[in-house]
Amino acid sequence: MPEIKINLSEKDIPRQWYNLAADLPTPMPPPLGPDGNPITPSMLSKVFPDNLIEQEVSTKRWIDIPEEIIDILYRWRPAPLRRAVYLERFLKTPARIYYKDESVSPAGSHKPNTAVPQAWYNKQFGIKKLITETGAGQWGSALAFSCNLIGLECKVYMVRISFDQKPLRKIMMQTWGATCVASPSNQTNSGREILKKMPNTPGSLGIAISEAVEEAVSDTSGKTRYALGSVLNHVLLHQTIMGLETKKQLKSINELEPDIVIGCVGGGSNFAGLAFPYVCDKIHGAKIQIIPVEPTACPTLTRGPFAYDHGDVAGLTPLLAMHTLGHNFIPEPIHAGGLRYHGMAPLVSHAAVEGLLEPRAYGQLKCYESAIIWAKTEGTICAPETSHAIACAIEEAHRAREEGKEKVILFSYSGHGLMDLTGYDKYLSGQLTDYAISDAELEKGLESIKDFPKPKISKQVK
Amino acid sequence: MPEIKINLSEKDIPRQWYNLAADLPTPMPPPLGPDGNPITPSMLSKVFPDNLIEQEVSTKRWIDIPEEIIDILYRWRPAPLRRAVYLERFLKTPARIYYKDESVSPAGSHKPNTAVPQAWYNKQFGIKKLITETGAGQWGSALAFSCNLIGLECKVYMVRISFDQKPLRKIMMQTWGATCVASPSNQTNSGREILKKMPNTPGSLGIAISEAVEEAVSDTSGKTRYALGSVLNHVLLHQTIMGLETKKQLKSINELEPDIVIGCVGGGSNFAGLAFPYVCDKIHGAKIQIIPVEPTACPTLTRGPFAYDHGDVAGLTPLLAMHTLGHNFIPEPIHAGGLRYHGMAPLVSHAAVEGLLEPRAYGQLKCYESAIIWAKTEGTICAPETSHAIACAIEEAHRAREEGKEKVILFSYSGHGLMDLTGYDKYLSGQLTDYAISDAELEKGLESIKDFPKPKISKQVK
Repeated sequence: MPEIKINLSEKDIPRQWYNLAADLPTPMPPPLGPDGNPITPSMLSKVFPDNLIEQEVSTKRWIDIPEEIIDILYRWRPAPLRRAVYLERFLKTPARIYYKDESVSPAGSHKPNTAVPQAWYNKQFGIKKLITETGAGQWGSALAFSCNLIGLECKVYMVRISFDQKPLRKIMMQTWGATCVASPSNQTNSGREILKKMPNTPGSLGIAISEAVEEAVSDTSGKTRYALGSVLNHVLLHQTIMGLETKKQLKSINELEPDIVIGCVGGGSNFAGLAFPYVCDKIHGAKIQIIPVEPTACPTLTRGPFAYDHGDVAGLTPLLAMHTLGHNFIPEPIHAGGLRYHGMAPLVSHAAVEGLLEPRAYGQLKCYESAIIWAKTEGTICAPETSHAIACAIEEAHRAREEGKEKVILFSYSGHGLMDLTGYDKYLSGQLTDYAISDAELEKGLESIKDFPKPKISKQVK
Repeated sequence: MPEIKINLSEKDIPRQWYNLAADLPTPMPPPLGPDGNPITPSMLSKVFPDNLIEQEVSTKRWIDIPEEIIDILYRWRPAPLRRAVYLERFLKTPARIYYKDESVSPAGSHKPNTAVPQAWYNKQFGIKKLITETGAGQWGSALAFSCNLIGLECKVYMVRISFDQKPLRKIMMQTWGATCVASPSNQTNSGREILKKMPNTPGSLGIAISEAVEEAVSDTSGKTRYALGSVLNHVLLHQTIMGLETKKQLKSINELEPDIVIGCVGGGSNFAGLAFPYVCDKIHGAKIQIIPVEPTACPTLTRGPFAYDHGDVAGLTPLLAMHTLGHNFIPEPIHAGGLRYHGMAPLVSHAAVEGLLEPRAYGQLKCYESAIIWAKTEGTICAPETSHAIACAIEEAHRAREEGKEKVILFSYSGHGLMDLTGYDKYLSGQLTDYAISDAELEKGLESIKDFPKPKISKQVK
């Protein structure tokens, strides 16, 4: 029986985060302000604390993790790396399949890896309250968990339809002492505006971001800031602890470096967390396939252009150079709520443009089919987002069998699906369908960005 | 920072279960058949496979765990022992509080510790299908998980009100391939009888047991058996892996033996799993307080007599010598569904009669208050059953502070509460009340057993 759980001793937890911006072959196009000029860090200072803005713009390769943050991460980290032996046997594959198990955190996903540092840096900076938005609730519950531990107030704008239909994550947030309100709400100008026009709207992530940012920047005490759970450079930075731990774990059992690294992508933070240390290897010559997997209902990397676009619907954020479907694009309501984002992290987008990634898009039926195979072989119930990575791992394991190659496949098990069981119910009872956007929908979404400047990547190597 | 997660290496997993029956100061009164005479093992053979009946009646102290079962338990065992440092600090207690974390199993509780061996022994005996009942669903999902891994069909009769109001556990069972039907159903005589009389009944555990046993024993192929998730000797036996691992873990960090051992009790298996190895120590002279905690709504050990009673409402099971509130007693619908059982495991009951245990009963408000303190300090959300143990640990930590004593407190964290968040919602919004049974209710419940023989405990030491 091969080793199926590869623990890492607490003393071997990484002491630094890895910053891919230091190794990208070409510099990233800068975020642009409303005037079309690059923004300065100080323009973000009403939104984020200065210490996080410093990380956001840093191109230093390694950034120290403060000891106090490590002390909190110890509650569930190092996260186990596991080998999916039972899936391998079921697939009769010569591949060895490993997965980084981020479902072990108290909030059940990888999100606390950045929620904890974000809360900690805000606290250090003298902030008393964090405001954020959440879709299905994975991020909102992670920030509620972290603010409670660190001693910050926390308020979460939760998309109305999730607030009503998926109350479990809301109860988690409240249990950890956070305030959770349905968005659009009557508590902000942007919320009131929308409610006037569309009193029965189910809400959207874009609206919720607008409300959260508005409340954060309009607090005159200066003690309130906004927090985001993905997309931004500092968020991806914090997640790299996943990949850095994994490297040590594979080494500890004398396993080869992976041939294939896989992660699901919505905003990009979970994928980046596992993959970026391997993207670094690839930049430096390693032969490795790195596959972000997105839903066909929201195929940002596979069908969206690399362009300047806002991070939110209302256009409150700077223009970011990223793969995007247009900030007006509203994805169909697939169950992997965490993958329903019109844009993609600029760092992930840039790596894709550089040809370092091989993105793929799957329909949700294939993903649920894979989730059921997983539950019946490995025994655990994965998040709908995670099922995209599993579907890809299974596809690659089949290919390894056909090719007769002993490949090492690694993927990120980003979270458990215990709060998302209704999706399983619908799949098992045949009520789910696939969604893929049409060319017309794509064109319509991109309408909203046609007048924006186009990002240029300097082909001059740094 | 003291060590907060005490792992145990896979090679140190216990290789034998501990059987308390070998060490009880006096022999247990035998189960009685319908004629009032002790039943013989063969009378159970249509219900359970012979290899499990052998364990049920065994008085051997140590029983080997087959290697194939250990191979499956490895998926999540050894379970971590954790130290609740943050709770200790919050309570300003000199006590050191440890908890055995059984929430890490794929089904989220301690139940797979016996579901896996039960499925395995049935398979060994040539059985093809297991039938069981479940209340809130912790046991049903654990058996579904285990049957899927081992290759048995699984059918679960789930109490109608849980089936309708708590669909999450049902979806888990279906995801693992089990059939889950609401009880009472039209699929058995006992179900049809009840539905004729009470078409709108919410069902009860007693009714569901009757349906499951009826279907199991009436299968003419001889390839179907019944499985129970608590109460019986062999179930408690399988759970002792919890306490045996814990002993090794405390020793590995050079910690003292615990002064106080705590577990919540419904049928008794979770409590017994952690506590029985310590009950053994106590029998042999160790100074240790062992506290089973039950709800005031179902105070079997603290208010029920030690008497002969049926394990189910319909009276299909043999008479067991146990603490009971009477098989007709229906506890109020508290959220700790796993503690709503009229009886108590004969082994636990016998240990209580022998004065080895110091049972306590709490109302659910105190327990939820403790669960919130736990979520805000330790960061995780516990099952409503588990909150009873936490409430007791907090009470004892306060006492240690008052007495100025550095006690070691150990309790069982029997499961997570992610499938039970509606109880937290009700508590946080002030909708919960306490229940405690009145003398009249107690008397009424005991009516049903007044004509049964009385168990005698031979005072003669074995």
